[in-house]
Amino acid sequence: MALRNLIRKFSGAFGWAEVERMPYKEEGSAPFKAISRQVLFADPVFKCELRYFEMEPGGYSTLERHEHAHAVMILRGRGLCLLDTEVRPVASHDLVTIAPMTWHQFRASEGEPLGFLCMVNAERDRPLLPSEHELKRLRAMPEIAAFLEGRSAP
Amino acid sequence: MALRNLIRKFSGAFGWAEVERMPYKEEGSAPFKAISRQVLFADPVFKCELRYFEMEPGGYSTLERHEHAHAVMILRGRGLCLLDTEVRPVASHDLVTIAPMTWHQFRASEGEPLGFLCMVNAERDRPLLPSEHELKRLRAMPEIAAFLEGRSAP
Repeated sequence: MALRNLIRKFSGAFGWAEVERMPYKEEGSAPFKAISRQVLFADPVFKCELRYFEMEPGGYSTLERHEHAHAVMILRGRGLCLLDTEVRPVASHDLVTIAPMTWHQFRASEGEPLGFLCMVNAERDRPLLPSEHELKRLRAMPEIAAFLEGRSAP
Repeated sequence: MALRNLIRKFSGAFGWAEVERMPYKEEGSAPFKAISRQVLFADPVFKCELRYFEMEPGGYSTLERHEHAHAVMILRGRGLCLLDTEVRPVASHDLVTIAPMTWHQFRASEGEPLGFLCMVNAERDRPLLPSEHELKRLRAMPEIAAFLEGRSAP
């Protein structure tokens, strides 16, 4: 069906008319916690998709990497972002560029949800999970170990 | 230069570190008023660009159309959007899909700025301005005439 002109109202609570709040990923496919996915724009006329992900307080996305890049804008709340070997605080409206093959993970603060927009190419490779060896290498860095175990204060 | 991992902090006032606030278009190239452009993501690894446009109170974008589509999220404020032959109120976080070859224009309310994110294919055609004939056809609709003359209350 051809793309049609459309205004979808924000419903408050970071939901939108005609946008379904979906599971982040298939359960059991990868580690994640308390995170939802809403696809805001994904028509074939666009070469990219725009999605909105939201983590409840203490929730986190999957630690993963892939050949495609992510263009992220935090839309609400605050939390931490693991980007390669750095753990960085992020807050509403910050911009995060995730380059190809960079290990990355988002984690909401304990106090409030963390929601972000993510623009991504429609044609893209599947995410890769860290091997035991790679996890061990990451966990050897104390700051990353604290992040992965949810011990970092955002 | 290869894309690098990067966090660009929101500076408040809807500006970002390392993001330049630019003129909307070349002066005199098309009608517009009190609007700025910030390119948030435009690296060649992305097949789309994400831009942030902001109009001061009473400002407006160019009335135009083109083959490429727009995926818009209002980020701040409220205003009106002309979409084909409809004038619709828009407010923060609403989603606007602008289909190919649709006349469209955004107009900020008199009371506050209107800012929106716009995702667009990196490869795209140039916008077309309305001919005198097309403008006359649009202005023949009272609601559109009021919108074009800034007489509509958002």
